Amino acid sequence: MATLIAPDHPSPVADAEALRKACQGWGTDEKAIISIIGHRNAVQKKLIIQAYEDIYQEDLINRLESELSGDFERAVYRWMLDPADRDAVLVNAAIKQTVIDYRVIIEISCIGSPEDLLAVKRAYQHRYKHSMEEDLAAHTTGDIRKLLFALVSVYRYDGDEINARLAHSEADILHNVIEEKVLNHEEIIRIVSTRSKAQFMATLNRYKDDYDTSITKHLVEDPANHYLAALRTAIRCINDPHKYYEKILRNALNKRGTDEDALTRVIVTRAEKDLNEIKELYYKRNSVSLDHAVAKHTSGDYKAFLLTLLGKED
Amino acid sequence: MATLIAPDHPSPVADAEALRKACQGWGTDEKAIISIIGHRNAVQKKLIIQAYEDIYQEDLINRLESELSGDFERAVYRWMLDPADRDAVLVNAAIKQTVIDYRVIIEISCIGSPEDLLAVKRAYQHRYKHSMEEDLAAHTTGDIRKLLFALVSVYRYDGDEINARLAHSEADILHNVIEEKVLNHEEIIRIVSTRSKAQFMATLNRYKDDYDTSITKHLVEDPANHYLAALRTAIRCINDPHKYYEKILRNALNKRGTDEDALTRVIVTRAEKDLNEIKELYYKRNSVSLDHAVAKHTSGDYKAFLLTLLGKED
Repeated sequence: MATLIAPDHPSPVADAEALRKACQGWGTDEKAIISIIGHRNAVQKKLIIQAYEDIYQEDLINRLESELSGDFERAVYRWMLDPADRDAVLVNAAIKQTVIDYRVIIEISCIGSPEDLLAVKRAYQHRYKHSMEEDLAAHTTGDIRKLLFALVSVYRYDGDEINARLAHSEADILHNVIEEKVLNHEEIIRIVSTRSKAQFMATLNRYKDDYDTSITKHLVEDPANHYLAALRTAIRCINDPHKYYEKILRNALNKRGTDEDALTRVIVTRAEKDLNEIKELYYKRNSVSLDHAVAKHTSGDYKAFLLTLLGKED
Repeated sequence: MATLIAPDHPSPVADAEALRKACQGWGTDEKAIISIIGHRNAVQKKLIIQAYEDIYQEDLINRLESELSGDFERAVYRWMLDPADRDAVLVNAAIKQTVIDYRVIIEISCIGSPEDLLAVKRAYQHRYKHSMEEDLAAHTTGDIRKLLFALVSVYRYDGDEINARLAHSEADILHNVIEEKVLNHEEIIRIVSTRSKAQFMATLNRYKDDYDTSITKHLVEDPANHYLAALRTAIRCINDPHKYYEKILRNALNKRGTDEDALTRVIVTRAEKDLNEIKELYYKRNSVSLDHAVAKHTSGDYKAFLLTLLGKED
């Protein structure tokens, strides 16, 4: 369930006019901006951007970027983008970091549906005139490249059918290569990256039944091994995305120095989808509400905006 | 240009009735069947199949299969399928062979557009309830798996933009790994499988300019090395599909014992696309027309059908 609270039929023209007013004259009216865009879903935002362009011959997102600053600006920018385009921007930024942020790439390739991933690939090509696959492959090497490349490339089957015999035999394959301590074995990457999610989860369950532990517990070695960390991340994202996101938020909010990038990413990308379930998990795990934790670790307009997206009533 | 000769507005109902008549009673009227389906494009065939189903509550393709036999049956079956579905069937058959037929997989992943490949993947999933990638990965190993998997998986960028500096640096990368005789190097597979076709062809040209030979000449070692043969095939399919198909036909028709499978595949898959260009190349290269060669190496209804698809007037 979404946390976003959006009215049913706001007027795109009235919204565009109000945003224009908030951006004009002395100082920017951040509160007015938050009160509008913090309560609009993806379709509604698209219509506002279109109306704004038609009326003022100006790109609304550019205008907002020039009016705002810091974490608030970055959050607004990401929030205003169309979801597939936003994911394309996130992937591109993740690829271009000195040490590639594999979490972003894995979230986008493993949590959404195969059609969602395809939409991100199209948006990526439209924006960067490259394929996501070629940029990823050109900026990575070794085992982590093999894993991320396969995850991003494959157009997974999305059906619910499960082949129990295959789950059995592939749980054994996984166990054998883990026993032999070949944790970068091609077969692990093949099974994680190509099987349908339903089939892969059946294999994970089978593994747990036959070997008494979840496979991620067996995929630990040197903590600095990025490939293994990425592999565990992929398995978690497929197996239980809510739990995965809860952990990302927990880490983002617990560290000395909040990880605003991760915090913004999770709230902005999930507010219209399943942020409510993630909030509930967060509360269960931490005995403090996510709203409370966010309020404690952030400030100013950035804080107000995140809390609005989290469903706090104005 | 197509070789297929199809009327503008045939009646699907009249065609369905005529096909029904050709299939009924004593013996099958193969000539009548060829005279209809050998002159209908993909859209027209789809409408006939629909009309036939509506009128007779029977699957036309199944009926034709049960009436016909041998190479003729197989050619008709493949011809009647919707193009994306046909490619899915061809890939599945290629994967399931004891020694995987990499040519089919490379043709489908490297010759059509990225959208064509996506359509084949969708058709594959619809028909087999698996992804093409998972079946391919599960039936292959080693270097050839790495290459074919990447070719099939990547959603290539289809734009015309060329980055000359990148072509230069990647030609050098290719040359370096070839110099070091690491012909299965990850970088070769990355460049061949992920770059847009326009970009990759710029890299090939640059390679030729800088090193005086086409790269395929440098990718030869042990003739029994299937990975290298597949790599050369991929490069040829991207670089010059007509030339590639001409060679497939030449080999199919020159061997003692015609390779009907390859012959059927090329004619059936290209008749509505570019078989005319392939015919012209064939004539230039062999000083004999393709029609003539086909007529010499085939017989009966199979021969009549192929010649019809090749554009021979009845």
